[in-house]
Amino acid sequence: MPVFAWKGESEQDFWWCIDQCVSSESWQPNMILDDGGDATHLLLKRYPAASNLIKGIVEESVTGVHRLYQLSKAGKLTVPAMNVNDSVTKTKFDNLYCPRETIVDALKRTTDVMLGGKQVLICGYGEVGKGCAAALKGVGAIVYVTEIDPICALQCCMDGFKVVTINDVIRQADILITATGNKDVVIREHMDRMKTGAIICNMGHSNTEIDVQSLRTPDLTWEKVRSQVDSIVWPDGKRISLLAEGRLVNLSCSAIPSFVVSITATTQALALIELFNAPSGRYKSDVYLLPKKMDEYVASLHLPTFDAHLTELTDEQAKYMGLQKTGPFKPQYYRY
Amino acid sequence: MPVFAWKGESEQDFWWCIDQCVSSESWQPNMILDDGGDATHLLLKRYPAASNLIKGIVEESVTGVHRLYQLSKAGKLTVPAMNVNDSVTKTKFDNLYCPRETIVDALKRTTDVMLGGKQVLICGYGEVGKGCAAALKGVGAIVYVTEIDPICALQCCMDGFKVVTINDVIRQADILITATGNKDVVIREHMDRMKTGAIICNMGHSNTEIDVQSLRTPDLTWEKVRSQVDSIVWPDGKRISLLAEGRLVNLSCSAIPSFVVSITATTQALALIELFNAPSGRYKSDVYLLPKKMDEYVASLHLPTFDAHLTELTDEQAKYMGLQKTGPFKPQYYRY
Amino acid sequence: MPVFAWKGESEQDFWWCIDQCVSSESWQPNMILDDGGDATHLLLKRYPAASNLIKGIVEESVTGVHRLYQLSKAGKLTVPAMNVNDSVTKTKFDNLYCPRETIVDALKRTTDVMLGGKQVLICGYGEVGKGCAAALKGVGAIVYVTEIDPICALQCCMDGFKVVTINDVIRQADILITATGNKDVVIREHMDRMKTGAIICNMGHSNTEIDVQSLRTPDLTWEKVRSQVDSIVWPDGKRISLLAEGRLVNLSCSAIPSFVVSITATTQALALIELFNAPSGRYKSDVYLLPKKMDEYVASLHLPTFDAHLTELTDEQAKYMGLQKTGPFKPQYYRY
Amino acid sequence: MPVFAWKGESEQDFWWCIDQCVSSESWQPNMILDDGGDATHLLLKRYPAASNLIKGIVEESVTGVHRLYQLSKAGKLTVPAMNVNDSVTKTKFDNLYCPRETIVDALKRTTDVMLGGKQVLICGYGEVGKGCAAALKGVGAIVYVTEIDPICALQCCMDGFKVVTINDVIRQADILITATGNKDVVIREHMDRMKTGAIICNMGHSNTEIDVQSLRTPDLTWEKVRSQVDSIVWPDGKRISLLAEGRLVNLSCSAIPSFVVSITATTQALALIELFNAPSGRYKSDVYLLPKKMDEYVASLHLPTFDAHLTELTDEQAKYMGLQKTGPFKPQYYRY
Repeated sequence: MPVFAWKGESEQDFWWCIDQCVSSESWQPNMILDDGGDATHLLLKRYPAASNLIKGIVEESVTGVHRLYQLSKAGKLTVPAMNVNDSVTKTKFDNLYCPRETIVDALKRTTDVMLGGKQVLICGYGEVGKGCAAALKGVGAIVYVTEIDPICALQCCMDGFKVVTINDVIRQADILITATGNKDVVIREHMDRMKTGAIICNMGHSNTEIDVQSLRTPDLTWEKVRSQVDSIVWPDGKRISLLAEGRLVNLSCSAIPSFVVSITATTQALALIELFNAPSGRYKSDVYLLPKKMDEYVASLHLPTFDAHLTELTDEQAKYMGLQKTGPFKPQYYRY
Repeated sequence: MPVFAWKGESEQDFWWCIDQCVSSESWQPNMILDDGGDATHLLLKRYPAASNLIKGIVEESVTGVHRLYQLSKAGKLTVPAMNVNDSVTKTKFDNLYCPRETIVDALKRTTDVMLGGKQVLICGYGEVGKGCAAALKGVGAIVYVTEIDPICALQCCMDGFKVVTINDVIRQADILITATGNKDVVIREHMDRMKTGAIICNMGHSNTEIDVQSLRTPDLTWEKVRSQVDSIVWPDGKRISLLAEGRLVNLSCSAIPSFVVSITATTQALALIELFNAPSGRYKSDVYLLPKKMDEYVASLHLPTFDAHLTELTDEQAKYMGLQKTGPFKPQYYRY
Repeated sequence: MPVFAWKGESEQDFWWCIDQCVSSESWQPNMILDDGGDATHLLLKRYPAASNLIKGIVEESVTGVHRLYQLSKAGKLTVPAMNVNDSVTKTKFDNLYCPRETIVDALKRTTDVMLGGKQVLICGYGEVGKGCAAALKGVGAIVYVTEIDPICALQCCMDGFKVVTINDVIRQADILITATGNKDVVIREHMDRMKTGAIICNMGHSNTEIDVQSLRTPDLTWEKVRSQVDSIVWPDGKRISLLAEGRLVNLSCSAIPSFVVSITATTQALALIELFNAPSGRYKSDVYLLPKKMDEYVASLHLPTFDAHLTELTDEQAKYMGLQKTGPFKPQYYRY
Repeated sequence: MPVFAWKGESEQDFWWCIDQCVSSESWQPNMILDDGGDATHLLLKRYPAASNLIKGIVEESVTGVHRLYQLSKAGKLTVPAMNVNDSVTKTKFDNLYCPRETIVDALKRTTDVMLGGKQVLICGYGEVGKGCAAALKGVGAIVYVTEIDPICALQCCMDGFKVVTINDVIRQADILITATGNKDVVIREHMDRMKTGAIICNMGHSNTEIDVQSLRTPDLTWEKVRSQVDSIVWPDGKRISLLAEGRLVNLSCSAIPSFVVSITATTQALALIELFNAPSGRYKSDVYLLPKKMDEYVASLHLPTFDAHLTELTDEQAKYMGLQKTGPFKPQYYRY
């Protein structure tokens, strides 16, 4: 299996690599496993002949899934596609536990900062924000949260965190973490008011959440402390540490646990197998959510790691609940 | 507004009360707010004329919602119905935080038991089990969990609880709590092996989870310790405390926080208003989930209790996210 | 064994009861087990003949111990006395875990308040404050703490609680708990600024911490909500709930776990036995701390409750550590 | 100020360095700040003339303090010495919070292991064990503890951890951490029974706790995974990761927070100043504990980091408590 990728690719390199993947003369892809939708896009658009031989697409990113739904709506999706981004084993594991395992690690590896008693402001209380907040509370930090969605805000209150606006606490925050999926959440005006020694990093989406560009002005001096750590110096001597230049700090400065990767990869592999093996007619040229039963299967494959022992329903219990003894155990809309 | 209900109703009383509600000569209901589906059932079946004047049904229980979907499937639902049981503000607040607030309270009020260091077995890690486990961990108990669903089991592991079968730990458990929604989860055979002084109670569904009937045998003696607490004595002198005769221990022996009730009641009220005011044609004779925007509105009404301050999207941010600034903020399938 | 005590004793009754205990014609006490030092005081002062037959005094309260040290200093202590108040199994169990087990219980039984997301101000971060803070954090409250001692304040920060002055947060506090051992910690001026619906209670010392007297003014109305709960109404309609009229809320409104009582009672019993059996000369007429080995013995007697299994030192390990294999395992000044 | 030390010193180098410190011709030390007692030992023994000019010794290690007490007992201590090892700001901060901040960090930096749901066995529940247990519970690990001291074991139970013997859980442990201060706590026999993939490390004392020597046998293969990480391979293919060859894993593989170092260093500096400035006669040639007031002063200097605001006693309150308004606030034996 040839691989086309290297660290430090340019944009041009990036597209060349994708092109190599889908258009090699020596092989013919029959399934696409994509993360972002770029391979899908290129193949469908530029190689219509090859795309006719594709039996299915598996996509795991928010962006890629969004594109697939648009294609489907426009009637331009010509093969079945599986949205694994919204499977439970993705949204409630990768998105929640991975940040919980990595945020403290990323902060420690880059700054060696003590976290007990530190005032931390987390922007966003989705799965990522929830994971970060739990981890930081666990090491004795005092956590504040900003939210736009009243439901997540109410969860946040019940979980014991104060819901504030950035302006309420920006002057006292020791550490600021973005986890919103949005852009310009932290802007120059905020950073101008932070105290010296504060640390800023992003756990959310791409490199858009912190307006890093606004820090590249002549009055501020950037000092590289070490790889992935810049100390920005204000004219009055104030210093703020910016991690990974605003890119995802856990991908840049920590290590994603292989267990979490395994869950997501297993989900993708099962989705590929399902689409490839499905009898003709089971899937049309549309976007599908992973069948609940496969989600459950992925989870069950990972339980032995924990010496976990499942309980089996008796026949009477299964009947009483209206369930098959082998699952699925929950309706499709169950939230976990 | 006449109310027909009293504590200690017989089954016959119960149906008489419902009949009074729907069939009074002096008034004519035009909306049904139901919890379990019995009023709905009676009206539709026995008072077809009156049911023609009903503009909508709001139902908040699992059972009632199940019946509505069956009616709809059978083409027998003649009015629009709103399933508020599956709104976020119900499933992720009432089901999760209410047990977290009440399980310790119920155990303390009935038994004055110290919880630090106690070994607690919780059957089920749905929302109710999650709430109980979090509360008991918070007071220093050692928590074990049983599960049938591998996804919930995996969450349980990641949350730091050992997933076991009942038989693995039944001999060492100090407290056993059921939270499965199923029947015969704890049977005589299990209780025969528990140690003296153990406490058994149910936080789940009805009074079916513990096989209480199996304890009513001549070889066991029941001693009433106080209201809602029975000490069951085995021939060898072993004693087990059974709370509320296996009925929901938090409803029987604790107090549900008014805040949680307020969230659910607000949801119901909004659903009634929506169905009543909706322009003709917006809802057909089918079962609907509460619109996400109403869920968010219910949450926003409860934030001032916590001095919580929401952040507002800028125009650019809303556009970037493809959202209205006033919500809804998440897709319908978002899990929270 | 005759007992002289009843609920609702007057001050006069109280002294009559103590007098009966120490001066009965039909018996002659030879040991004193005291909690507060009043029996000791009466016997030594009023019954010198009887006090000559006393072989030892065991005292478990701060106040009583204080009096004994004063007697000793003044050369007026005529028998050996054991200070069990400062044994580890008292200060680090009774003082810490008992509040942790009872504060939430006391709040729930009296007010049914939901604790998730509530802002709680605890005055004092000694053992009692630490126990309350841990319990309330465990149920999702947001905890603030006041302290006079910089060491306890620093512990508090590291444990993840914000150290404030009362004035910093009094307007936003939902619940105010005193745990200082001091007097007039919460005064009228503070309560005038609290928000309506707030709850005030005392977990510390006697009934001195909250200036309850300052609330008995003509402009405020007291409404008895239920036993141990008063609603104080301000002229503008603001209401504050005062629990147990400022007396210890866990003693008044909760139930002390029998396990904690057992630890303390065992300590007292062992101290009595030690003083009674000690060969002449081991103890002089002075105040002694409980020997470390007895503290360890008390702890070891309570481990089976938890299925806890101790590890035993090998001969080599004991030698390496300079310890006896049977303990004591720590120097007298070890802090645990 | 000349410094004599480098990474990777031999034993001989080590003593040469110390000799240079105390015997330089170009300077004359008048105070000793020691960590382990080696400089003190060398100076007193080999340079009696120089030692006569020493005004005081400050020692911060268990071992060094032990030696000083022995010298004092033997009447051979010729200068006043301060035991800062047993100051509160050392035992309850450095010993407790430093492990809490560093154990997860050390495990992540060396092995990238996911900690959620992992079964961790900690040997010892002193301050170090308490810190490790709290940190690991905070990230979702399931923690078991071994103890020899029944008091610490009882604390452990009340804190929600199961007290076991190594043999009870060695087969299921994913991670084993020693924190006892003892030797041969983990021996070959234990490691032979651990499961493949398990991780072993030491947070306690020197490199004695794990019998590393017992792993250097011909049947086992050592593979260096990276700096400070060895994979030991059993004949059947089982692999165990040993961190830092059994030396202190947080010193070897993590970074001690500068804040914790600051607390300890400040304590040492104040002790030096006190001994140097003390009027003749205040200290004799004996070992002294740091005065409580200095401990409090060290703490107060570190509170601004947390925006912590101390409360000041009123005159009446100070009088009621029998305290000076400026402290000390607790008796010498107070445990915190």
